[in-house]
Amino acid sequence: MNARQKFVASQAHVDDEAVKPLPASRKVYVEGSRPDIRVPMREITQTDTPVLGRNGEPGTEKNPPICVYDTSGPYTDPAVKIDIRAGLPPLRAPWIAERGDTEALPGPSSRYGRERLADPRLAPMRFDLKRAPRRAKQGMNVTQMHYARRGIVTPEMEFVAIRENQRLERYPELLRRQHPGEPFGARLPREITPEFVRDEVARGRAIIPANVNHPEAEPMAIGRNFLVKVNANIGNSAVSSSIGEEVEKMTWAIRWGADTVMDLSTGKNIHETREWIVRNSPVPVGTVPIYQALEKVGGKAEELTWEVFRDTLIEQAEQGVDYFTIHAGVRLAYIPLTARRLTGIVSRGGSIMAKWCLAHHRESFLYTHFEEICEVMKAYDVAFSLGDGLRPGSIHDANDAAQLAELKTLGELTDVAWKHDVQVMIEGPGHVPMHLVRENMDLQLQWCREAPFYTLGPLTTDIAPGYDHITSAIGAAMIGWFGTAMLCYVTPKEHLGLPNKKDVKDGIIAYKIAAHAADLAKGHPGAQVRDNALSKARFEFRWADQFNLGLDPDTAKDFHDETLPQEGAKLAHFCSMCGPHFCSMKITQDVRDYAEKAGLAAEEALARGMAEKSREFVEQGAEIYRPA
Amino acid sequence: MNARQKFVASQAHVDDEAVKPLPASRKVYVEGSRPDIRVPMREITQTDTPVLGRNGEPGTEKNPPICVYDTSGPYTDPAVKIDIRAGLPPLRAPWIAERGDTEALPGPSSRYGRERLADPRLAPMRFDLKRAPRRAKQGMNVTQMHYARRGIVTPEMEFVAIRENQRLERYPELLRRQHPGEPFGARLPREITPEFVRDEVARGRAIIPANVNHPEAEPMAIGRNFLVKVNANIGNSAVSSSIGEEVEKMTWAIRWGADTVMDLSTGKNIHETREWIVRNSPVPVGTVPIYQALEKVGGKAEELTWEVFRDTLIEQAEQGVDYFTIHAGVRLAYIPLTARRLTGIVSRGGSIMAKWCLAHHRESFLYTHFEEICEVMKAYDVAFSLGDGLRPGSIHDANDAAQLAELKTLGELTDVAWKHDVQVMIEGPGHVPMHLVRENMDLQLQWCREAPFYTLGPLTTDIAPGYDHITSAIGAAMIGWFGTAMLCYVTPKEHLGLPNKKDVKDGIIAYKIAAHAADLAKGHPGAQVRDNALSKARFEFRWADQFNLGLDPDTAKDFHDETLPQEGAKLAHFCSMCGPHFCSMKITQDVRDYAEKAGLAAEEALARGMAEKSREFVEQGAEIYRPA
Repeated sequence: MNARQKFVASQAHVDDEAVKPLPASRKVYVEGSRPDIRVPMREITQTDTPVLGRNGEPGTEKNPPICVYDTSGPYTDPAVKIDIRAGLPPLRAPWIAERGDTEALPGPSSRYGRERLADPRLAPMRFDLKRAPRRAKQGMNVTQMHYARRGIVTPEMEFVAIRENQRLERYPELLRRQHPGEPFGARLPREITPEFVRDEVARGRAIIPANVNHPEAEPMAIGRNFLVKVNANIGNSAVSSSIGEEVEKMTWAIRWGADTVMDLSTGKNIHETREWIVRNSPVPVGTVPIYQALEKVGGKAEELTWEVFRDTLIEQAEQGVDYFTIHAGVRLAYIPLTARRLTGIVSRGGSIMAKWCLAHHRESFLYTHFEEICEVMKAYDVAFSLGDGLRPGSIHDANDAAQLAELKTLGELTDVAWKHDVQVMIEGPGHVPMHLVRENMDLQLQWCREAPFYTLGPLTTDIAPGYDHITSAIGAAMIGWFGTAMLCYVTPKEHLGLPNKKDVKDGIIAYKIAAHAADLAKGHPGAQVRDNALSKARFEFRWADQFNLGLDPDTAKDFHDETLPQEGAKLAHFCSMCGPHFCSMKITQDVRDYAEKAGLAAEEALARGMAEKSREFVEQGAEIYRPA
Repeated sequence: MNARQKFVASQAHVDDEAVKPLPASRKVYVEGSRPDIRVPMREITQTDTPVLGRNGEPGTEKNPPICVYDTSGPYTDPAVKIDIRAGLPPLRAPWIAERGDTEALPGPSSRYGRERLADPRLAPMRFDLKRAPRRAKQGMNVTQMHYARRGIVTPEMEFVAIRENQRLERYPELLRRQHPGEPFGARLPREITPEFVRDEVARGRAIIPANVNHPEAEPMAIGRNFLVKVNANIGNSAVSSSIGEEVEKMTWAIRWGADTVMDLSTGKNIHETREWIVRNSPVPVGTVPIYQALEKVGGKAEELTWEVFRDTLIEQAEQGVDYFTIHAGVRLAYIPLTARRLTGIVSRGGSIMAKWCLAHHRESFLYTHFEEICEVMKAYDVAFSLGDGLRPGSIHDANDAAQLAELKTLGELTDVAWKHDVQVMIEGPGHVPMHLVRENMDLQLQWCREAPFYTLGPLTTDIAPGYDHITSAIGAAMIGWFGTAMLCYVTPKEHLGLPNKKDVKDGIIAYKIAAHAADLAKGHPGAQVRDNALSKARFEFRWADQFNLGLDPDTAKDFHDETLPQEGAKLAHFCSMCGPHFCSMKITQDVRDYAEKAGLAAEEALARGMAEKSREFVEQGAEIYRPA
């Protein structure tokens, strides 16, 4: 083995655990208007329900397979051979090429990108991409927003429309049983059409992060009239972790439902780490370019320059990063507003820029060069995630003057970006007690003119280090209901250490719960299908179906098996908590059978004669579970 | 060893892990108006913050010890010798005795209690209580509500007042920095006085569960003008677990903050299991007497009788159970309303009663004998927890006709109970999407005239078996904010199996988070003291203080140590996530120092000359962390 082979063998593997299909699940593809629009979904098979016919003969009721939104990409498709060294197939390449508004570059156009490529010491760890980076042709704008505003429905938009619908037409019965939600001014159509997607993107109410240099990504939308999305942060730090671990964290994160990942690496070789992640990521990848820019100036914030920053943007844009967190709202004048805070500035990017501003006593170069940043963004279709550098780091600092001043500035910057047809989302807090959550959302919608909100939590209390996935899932669910489009996950290690694989999964599951609870409360069409299917399985003691329809079938099954490990127990008509006598689900079957026969009306039942009914009920074998 | 000694040795031990004091914590007692009112609290010691004086000389800022509400009883007091066989000291015995309205009975007055006592086979496992059971003297009413309504402030009420205040007067600085909450019509005084407690109990807005036969319990209040409380369910089932395990679960549950425990045992020897739990429990104990009544009739719901049930109430009341869940609102006419549900009746007690009603086609004996039940309750001061037998078991069934019909009936029964001066709380759902949570609370307050609400979750989605502590913590935090007085915890094993110790702890911590988030949002006086103290410790890199002020110091420390295990790392001025260069907390110190000197106003700073400031900032050592 040469050095490169050794590196790849040691680092760039994917754990079998992360790529096998989920239980009872298969990957299906829904074709769009052209054969290369193939939208992946996960179909969960259900078992039949035993029923008795009119004459008491045993039969079965079919339970439909349930389609769920699938972020795991080709990894969970056994038909696709995964090769981390080759990266994923570039499904969007033909769409990008046929638009004819981009050109292949001879090589990286950033100074740093060229340096890294020329450094022979990096050869062993470099991802060996054969494809050249692309950029908009001179004078062209290649953003999805630009197309949308010109009335063009791109394949990406059609892909998103099919993906968001989750084949709802298949579940008339389960759909009928959905509570109407309370969408707080959102506009949730019964069916999402490609034209609806286009319109939302054109208005800036949704974004489709889709860098022309990340053709491997499956298009997805972030906007409050779509399903609430979840981002997972990965990335190594100076203190620990390696490239292979980060790629593995990415595949692990998308398996459990991360809709995007942010690579927040701050250690060595972050350029190379990022390349491996992007080439293998079927979900959009976000970064915070100031982290790498700071590395380039030896960690001294005051030595940052616009030139170094701009070169970093181009470097990362040409690798395929789909959105950049840019803390352009941290203005010099706002920094003193943080002085009386309990926890100062807790955003890393915000701290770096505050330090730069103070060291130079000048306005932030991110703010003064914002239009130039837009020029870079629109040449690759990188979306803004306008960072909340002054977000509160404690309950005490929630919704204070510093935070709100920055939010207002982010609204002004949104207007500037939209002038360039650059896609924008807005980052939000942080630490906020429940009664102040709504104000964040309302001000964001007003000041940022409905650009999608992308919030970290918020954490609703500070007193539970080790459990901040929970303190923040509470705030995340609420703000998702109120209109946040994407939730940035928080792991149990928040404030304490770097998340490992277990923490990543725990964080994602907590946030999938928050996102789904929000979809239910908003009344997103079809959100309740999965709840209804799972609850029906639970009621009918279809244990395996209950596990498989859940967010984490493995854990559900393990927990069940701790109490009743035998395979037979999963067919048992009682559950492992109460035992056979006490199971309310079992008892209620009897009740239900009777009441259903009684035709719902107690009065009628009474009229038909209590004594008769009583005798019948007992005769029918009150103690014995009978299939419905 | 004889059989009894063997049993005690094998079963009735307390794990060392459950009884050692929490880190940096000591038990303190605040004395009331008489020396035998000694209210326990946990005082968490903090380290000093290093500071620089005016002339740059190093010094320290003292951080006050923080008092937190302590549910762990004598177990965490090293001065108390724990002996499970002897039970806890009966701290309320003198108060009960001096009221002169109860009498010691010659022995159990329930038929079942006498039978168990007379059965020689049970001798080895019996708790050897020397004290006789007590009961109200003929014609007397011994409830806290009865005293309150006659204007008597009992020692229990004074104890509660001191306990709820958490010595707030000690933290003027931390208190000043609290957000005003949004208490939705609750009435939160700045200081809770004994008279306020009396008034709340008299109006029925709060209860103090305090059976005269459970003198070991430390008085606590459940009401929406007090801190939100958490209940933990324990109890063995036919399928698994033993007496020793249940006692251990109780001590474990109160260590992590359970304010009450419910013993939901359904297996063998539940009379004896309960006795061990009650004798060793410093928190009120609740039960669902119908479970045991059903055991007594061989598990056949239709064979239940009022006589068996009444005997069970007396049996358990004389053991010292502080509140009974009684599903008296499951009326015959409501059962058909559940027929079209997705998940029928999911409350065990509700199912049992529904089955009885259908089998007999008669109104529930709990409803028809309700006044007689009140007679039993007031003779011992057992509080009602009016059970929600028809609570929804799925999102689909939330807030339906069956649920709301029962809730209205619980309101009528509240009036009946109050006529007898019997304390009442009302149980609530269940599974409810976020947008329907508020309706539950509002209708409960209206129909049950502000009797305390005691809710299970609610779970805000059905799709996460294995994580229902999280799906429900979201709903619990919200409904706590809206006015729920006590939250019944849900463990990760909900729907799947019996919780073990880890699950019990995970459930409690999730619910302490929900309860505290609710206290913050309501603006409970002083709720934010702990958040502020912890956030200050975090900002100042006082790692040990950050761990110790949290709900679970052990897990926080373990998580930190996974990334940076060295002892020195806990003194590091950066955290284990970002490494030294990038730590935003570190950078922000510099920013803060500067901005504070600049006197907050950016304009002023600008006026003083940007160039000068810039030079100063760099000269002051921009890279070096300097203590504030």
